Amino acid sequence: MKPWDRLITDARLATLRADLEGYGAIEDAAIAFKDGRIAFAGAQSDLPAALDALAEHVQSANGHWLTPALIDCHTHLVFAGSRAPEFERRLQGVSYEQIAREGGGILATVAATRASSEEALLAAALPRARALRADGVATLEIKSGYGLDCDSERKMLRVARRIGDELGMTVRTTYLGAHALPREYAGQADDYIAAACGWLSALHAEGLVDAVDAFCEGIGFSPVQTRRMFEAARELGLPVKLHADQLSDLGGAALCAQFDGLSADHLEYVEENGVRAMAEHGTVAVLLPGAFHVLRETRLPPIALLRQHGVAMAVSTDLNPGTSPLQSLRLAMSLACTHFRITPEEALRGATTHAAKALGLADRGVLAVGLRADVAEWNIAHPAELSYWLGGDPLRRLFIAGHAVD
Amino acid sequence: MKPWDRLITDARLATLRADLEGYGAIEDAAIAFKDGRIAFAGAQSDLPAALDALAEHVQSANGHWLTPALIDCHTHLVFAGSRAPEFERRLQGVSYEQIAREGGGILATVAATRASSEEALLAAALPRARALRADGVATLEIKSGYGLDCDSERKMLRVARRIGDELGMTVRTTYLGAHALPREYAGQADDYIAAACGWLSALHAEGLVDAVDAFCEGIGFSPVQTRRMFEAARELGLPVKLHADQLSDLGGAALCAQFDGLSADHLEYVEENGVRAMAEHGTVAVLLPGAFHVLRETRLPPIALLRQHGVAMAVSTDLNPGTSPLQSLRLAMSLACTHFRITPEEALRGATTHAAKALGLADRGVLAVGLRADVAEWNIAHPAELSYWLGGDPLRRLFIAGHAVD
Ligand SMILES: [Zn+2]
Ligand SMILES: [Zn+2]
Repeated sequence: MKPWDRLITDARLATLRADLEGYGAIEDAAIAFKDGRIAFAGAQSDLPAALDALAEHVQSANGHWLTPALIDCHTHLVFAGSRAPEFERRLQGVSYEQIAREGGGILATVAATRASSEEALLAAALPRARALRADGVATLEIKSGYGLDCDSERKMLRVARRIGDELGMTVRTTYLGAHALPREYAGQADDYIAAACGWLSALHAEGLVDAVDAFCEGIGFSPVQTRRMFEAARELGLPVKLHADQLSDLGGAALCAQFDGLSADHLEYVEENGVRAMAEHGTVAVLLPGAFHVLRETRLPPIALLRQHGVAMAVSTDLNPGTSPLQSLRLAMSLACTHFRITPEEALRGATTHAAKALGLADRGVLAVGLRADVAEWNIAHPAELSYWLGGDPLRRLFIAGHAVD
Repeated sequence: MKPWDRLITDARLATLRADLEGYGAIEDAAIAFKDGRIAFAGAQSDLPAALDALAEHVQSANGHWLTPALIDCHTHLVFAGSRAPEFERRLQGVSYEQIAREGGGILATVAATRASSEEALLAAALPRARALRADGVATLEIKSGYGLDCDSERKMLRVARRIGDELGMTVRTTYLGAHALPREYAGQADDYIAAACGWLSALHAEGLVDAVDAFCEGIGFSPVQTRRMFEAARELGLPVKLHADQLSDLGGAALCAQFDGLSADHLEYVEENGVRAMAEHGTVAVLLPGAFHVLRETRLPPIALLRQHGVAMAVSTDLNPGTSPLQSLRLAMSLACTHFRITPEEALRGATTHAAKALGLADRGVLAVGLRADVAEWNIAHPAELSYWLGGDPLRRLFIAGHAVD
């Protein structure tokens, strides 16, 4: 019986270990997996010479770079329909108002999602999750929020779980009942929130909910309504996160931090007190450059402030049919560099280490002994290439819990 | 002997035929190939009922959309090295000037390309061409211009030809000796142009050149120098195109039109007289949103003027290591819609019909009888999805000259 399941030699590791500089690079390195965990990650010269005796499978990486597998910590990838025709009409000069009058926008996605069977919803969502995986993602978060009634929210969350089973990825589910106000509750947002808090209990009891999110915005729910949802989450012992301060400063980041939120997401309009609260409570800032790009926003999230206060920054696709039809986390990293001027190193950490933190997962996002063997091998000459290319197909191999994905 | 080689039934065609509205859509359609050409493209009800008798291979498209295969009419995809470390240093706050002093910028790519063997250059470029093909591209243009001496320009053009052979794609080569001034000619731009015109003759005699391009810009070559290169092209009977009016208005578009140029490319600063000249001479406007995006430019090409004068607009990746490391033509289409506000229909035509025109190829870019059977089949519900998604993998099948690419 050899000590390890797999040993990859002649590798270059971007470990992202906090005790090392920059990317935490180790050149002339090797990495080993055992029972789905990393059993060794370090200089190859620290291993005995007879490598074949060390693991069942010994393979050379031929000098390629390995990083932690990517983690997409904010997606809405379960939905029916696409909003491409609406995208087209906007570019033909039709106004948002007109499109809304025609039944477009988020409620169009809600109607399509409600009308869709669980199987059809799964079939529609799987290629999107597969596209993320083909780009190096092993862990992803998926939100509900296009159901907006108990059965439809359940259907979405069940599909999210099934995606994880089907593709061998870790899926963390987030209940986003407080995403938009469905037509049947028009003018009764408080009543809707009360109902949605009830559905949360039911769905949580079914094991479908890992965290709770809300859309706190002038066009979404108020801070008071958000707080009510967060209190319901707290009663169930569920962590919270928030779509916060994207289009205006409602103090969402600070509110989320008060609840020890895992993350506050978007943040274009967050002010310094919100950033300070996030720093105090360890709430991650999730940057979502896809929506910024598609909406052609000009107000940048306060990167300098976030750095100054030591708030961990994650980067995510926000994959959704309206404002971010973005199916590549590498592309989100590129957009974050170009639009938000973060560095490729921050982008990579944002799509690994800090994304793991944003999901409350302490067992991944760094190449270190004892962590999950979720590892990506790339056909690149420098880790910055992961943020530099737009498109392309640099992934050579992806290991999830030590198993190669084919 | 059955009349056709292949028949695809139950298809939806975005033919892009000029005599039809919009996308030239035909639903409930079929398309047939014979000897690498399209032998039928129309309503399935126009075919006799016994479909199996019509072709050797009869397959259903299951209602999927088919379009002309994509055409990338402006790339610099043969080069050595990447400029990712430079990209990283810029985002760390290092100035362009400092990077240039350190030997960065285009001359870094020239040095790496010169030092690279033909085999190494091919090995570096092939994955990029493969990424384009995986996204639906069957025809692409490749420019020289990182050699800047006769042997190195030859090496680049030979690699371009070999890419076409290797991947079964049509590659059109463009001589771009007038891309930048190599160090050994510092202060002697006129002498360099004279030399580069000589290399053009030699390389053309070797069958390596299909067209001639130049970089007409304050930081490139002057209109007078550009004209000299164009005259050399004209003597050899070669068509021209031009990197024109990207960063300032030097009258490049008008100059190119005077030489009946195939295309003037970039065009952010072109004025109305330039647009009018392009319209008169049938010169295509090639939009390159990748460089606009990466450089965070704010001056848009004059889309309304181009439309008003009836100038055909193409869309291309400009795939290059400095200003547009963009390996997806679909993503270029998306960027053109978002940044330049063209419609998804214009983007698709720009990546097919008009891109063919920009390459002087009259035999492709539309689904019509007699044209090349370069056809892409997509997993989409609406043609606008080709411009709507960022990333993802919607290509189901690609046929080049009637043969399925695997
Ligand atoms: Zn979101
Ligand atoms: Zn170019």
